[in-house]
Amino acid sequence: MSTPEVEIVHREEFAAAHRLHNPALSDDENRRIYGICNNERGHGHNYVVDVVVRGPVDPRTGMVMNLVDLAGFVREEIVQPCDHKHLNHDVAFLEGRITTAENLAVAFWERVEPRIAEIGTCRLHRIRVYESRTNFVDYLGPRP
Amino acid sequence: MSTPEVEIVHREEFAAAHRLHNPALSDDENRRIYGICNNERGHGHNYVVDVVVRGPVDPRTGMVMNLVDLAGFVREEIVQPCDHKHLNHDVAFLEGRITTAENLAVAFWERVEPRIAEIGTCRLHRIRVYESRTNFVDYLGPRP
Amino acid sequence: MSTPEVEIVHREEFAAAHRLHNPALSDDENRRIYGICNNERGHGHNYVVDVVVRGPVDPRTGMVMNLVDLAGFVREEIVQPCDHKHLNHDVAFLEGRITTAENLAVAFWERVEPRIAEIGTCRLHRIRVYESRTNFVDYLGPRP
Amino acid sequence: MSTPEVEIVHREEFAAAHRLHNPALSDDENRRIYGICNNERGHGHNYVVDVVVRGPVDPRTGMVMNLVDLAGFVREEIVQPCDHKHLNHDVAFLEGRITTAENLAVAFWERVEPRIAEIGTCRLHRIRVYESRTNFVDYLGPRP
Amino acid sequence: MSTPEVEIVHREEFAAAHRLHNPALSDDENRRIYGICNNERGHGHNYVVDVVVRGPVDPRTGMVMNLVDLAGFVREEIVQPCDHKHLNHDVAFLEGRITTAENLAVAFWERVEPRIAEIGTCRLHRIRVYESRTNFVDYLGPRP
Amino acid sequence: MSTPEVEIVHREEFAAAHRLHNPALSDDENRRIYGICNNERGHGHNYVVDVVVRGPVDPRTGMVMNLVDLAGFVREEIVQPCDHKHLNHDVAFLEGRITTAENLAVAFWERVEPRIAEIGTCRLHRIRVYESRTNFVDYLGPRP
Repeated sequence: MSTPEVEIVHREEFAAAHRLHNPALSDDENRRIYGICNNERGHGHNYVVDVVVRGPVDPRTGMVMNLVDLAGFVREEIVQPCDHKHLNHDVAFLEGRITTAENLAVAFWERVEPRIAEIGTCRLHRIRVYESRTNFVDYLGPRP
Repeated sequence: MSTPEVEIVHREEFAAAHRLHNPALSDDENRRIYGICNNERGHGHNYVVDVVVRGPVDPRTGMVMNLVDLAGFVREEIVQPCDHKHLNHDVAFLEGRITTAENLAVAFWERVEPRIAEIGTCRLHRIRVYESRTNFVDYLGPRP
Repeated sequence: MSTPEVEIVHREEFAAAHRLHNPALSDDENRRIYGICNNERGHGHNYVVDVVVRGPVDPRTGMVMNLVDLAGFVREEIVQPCDHKHLNHDVAFLEGRITTAENLAVAFWERVEPRIAEIGTCRLHRIRVYESRTNFVDYLGPRP
Repeated sequence: MSTPEVEIVHREEFAAAHRLHNPALSDDENRRIYGICNNERGHGHNYVVDVVVRGPVDPRTGMVMNLVDLAGFVREEIVQPCDHKHLNHDVAFLEGRITTAENLAVAFWERVEPRIAEIGTCRLHRIRVYESRTNFVDYLGPRP
Repeated sequence: MSTPEVEIVHREEFAAAHRLHNPALSDDENRRIYGICNNERGHGHNYVVDVVVRGPVDPRTGMVMNLVDLAGFVREEIVQPCDHKHLNHDVAFLEGRITTAENLAVAFWERVEPRIAEIGTCRLHRIRVYESRTNFVDYLGPRP
Repeated sequence: MSTPEVEIVHREEFAAAHRLHNPALSDDENRRIYGICNNERGHGHNYVVDVVVRGPVDPRTGMVMNLVDLAGFVREEIVQPCDHKHLNHDVAFLEGRITTAENLAVAFWERVEPRIAEIGTCRLHRIRVYESRTNFVDYLGPRP
């Protein structure tokens, strides 16, 4: 029998301000598209991020990958640069991106994916970003 | 590089009464199949509904679709007709359906899907209905 | 040193239908006071009940009272008569009461209090009833 | 027998940015006291507010006060001025206050208390403000 | 039109102790791999298990399978053998397995899958095991 | 006007094994009192602890006490000694105590209270210990 594949999920949280605004558009258009999320001084969220890694269970450890390593990657690549920051101004890897949950999920994927790929035995499978209790997004990567 | 595809989820809640009962079956058979859920006067739940829409992220807005529009569709098509109602008696689009969570998910899909399809750039991907903290269902649509 | 006093809390859940309606008032007045909660066929909730008992910690057991007994009382006095029922029609001890969360809390107190009093070493301290995630009530008993 | 007193709780949520900063102190002192919460561009939260009202249960309605009215007060006095805003810059009634959860709770009390007092039969009992899942505060009013 | 396929999910909880330890490895290696999870006397969790069954909705009942049966299977096969036990010592079907969440999910699949298969009209689709609020795993079965 | 008094709450979590057992009693008596919680090899929980501090809001900082300090005290006095441990065997300050939630709350009070008292301007007001989603206790200290 082949080794079973399992998905493991680690969740982290951070608090940040952001503003939905596309500088390439007029102020009127920004207000029309983003409504109250376009408020000039910004607003904020307690973001929750679920990072999902998929791979075979190593029979020697019973693990897909070491959870301590996974938690470390997520804290280094996502929480430390974003926690208690303004996502539009303070986070280098978000420069030039509109800070929607959709774009955050894609940016977080780009940050975490190489750290998982390096392990060689498993792969990043999904990034979920909760902006609030009622709104969240899932990104499954740049699949064909 | 192609535009990434993301799933966005919006959650709404409503409170409703219902009763599991198939009028085509005998009372005994109804009691045997549905147990306490067949109680004649009904019981009720705080239903939670997650509507999942999938599509490419529009580079101009950073969004799969406008979240305000999505919230509006879910409130118009699901919450307003069902909130503080008896699902067996007060909701036109549930007439003739046994009000299990399975059937609610399918009925909600039929209500919301045309509103999403009209946008043209994304599609309804999943409807999740929580009947309680411990019981919920997922419908992924009439896929081949 | 005297024995410390501690409050222990046990939580249970049940699903029920109800309707806010005072038969002593006109239909118009009922609609004006209760709004959508007056819907004739009723609506429903997943109710959550927290029962709080206060007393000294027995040094022999390390407990205020046996949690298995407390859980048993709450199930017998509240969950079994109310679960998967219509609170206005199916529950004898609610007859003649308007089924607001306030009245439920008082009625549940009357049911559970004698069971706790019988133990002799602790007392019922509080009943909390959650009607939904956003609305709940606390009753601390008929104190002077 | 006298009418029982009950506490009713209504919960609302809003998303806002803020920054902990006392302009009367030096930048160094601000950084020392507030740490990452002093980040110049601010950060943000999904705030949750519980408003607790205490009073006798009206035997005619079974309610301490009408929940629709309570929800309306909380939305008008707290959610509408604060939602999707920067609390340090966009909210008139917070001008001149350091935007800690403690000060928010006191400010929200001052906003909501007169609306409850006007009813005449019940009183504001407690304001709880959750800044995050792990940090929250309770204000019980200016009691002697 | 064909019958729609729906996934139904039932959630159960249990409290158990465990220790991450591979007896085939040295003590040093165990400590290096499992860190604090290797503590000799063990630690513990409130485990949450979601069992997902997928199949067509029976038009006669409106159900994929009877939820009472599903709850019964999960309690018999998972909760009763594991609740208030030490997973490394007290659970026969876990003997010889390292008690990671990954291995628990696979073991729970093997227990529940034959009970679902016996029904003949639906199939086990996924087992999710939450070890804590921040760490959980998903097993989708031994698929090709 | 006097400075308002506010309660601030900080929440932490830890995972631990324990066993309810009083060595001064016979095995039969232990089984009768504690039931499945007396299982010889122990079981476990994801414990949640809320530490509540009460005091006036310092007008210079807008805080009852610095939240970073409070979090530090709770981690040093409770989380570090208890996390991923067996509470009956591995925690010095619990030696000789039956590890019920009641006794944990009292023991945690004794650990954290001197750290708060040292500040001089506020006081420990309450310790809440959640053993599970449905069972928790509150200790308000050795008040007269």
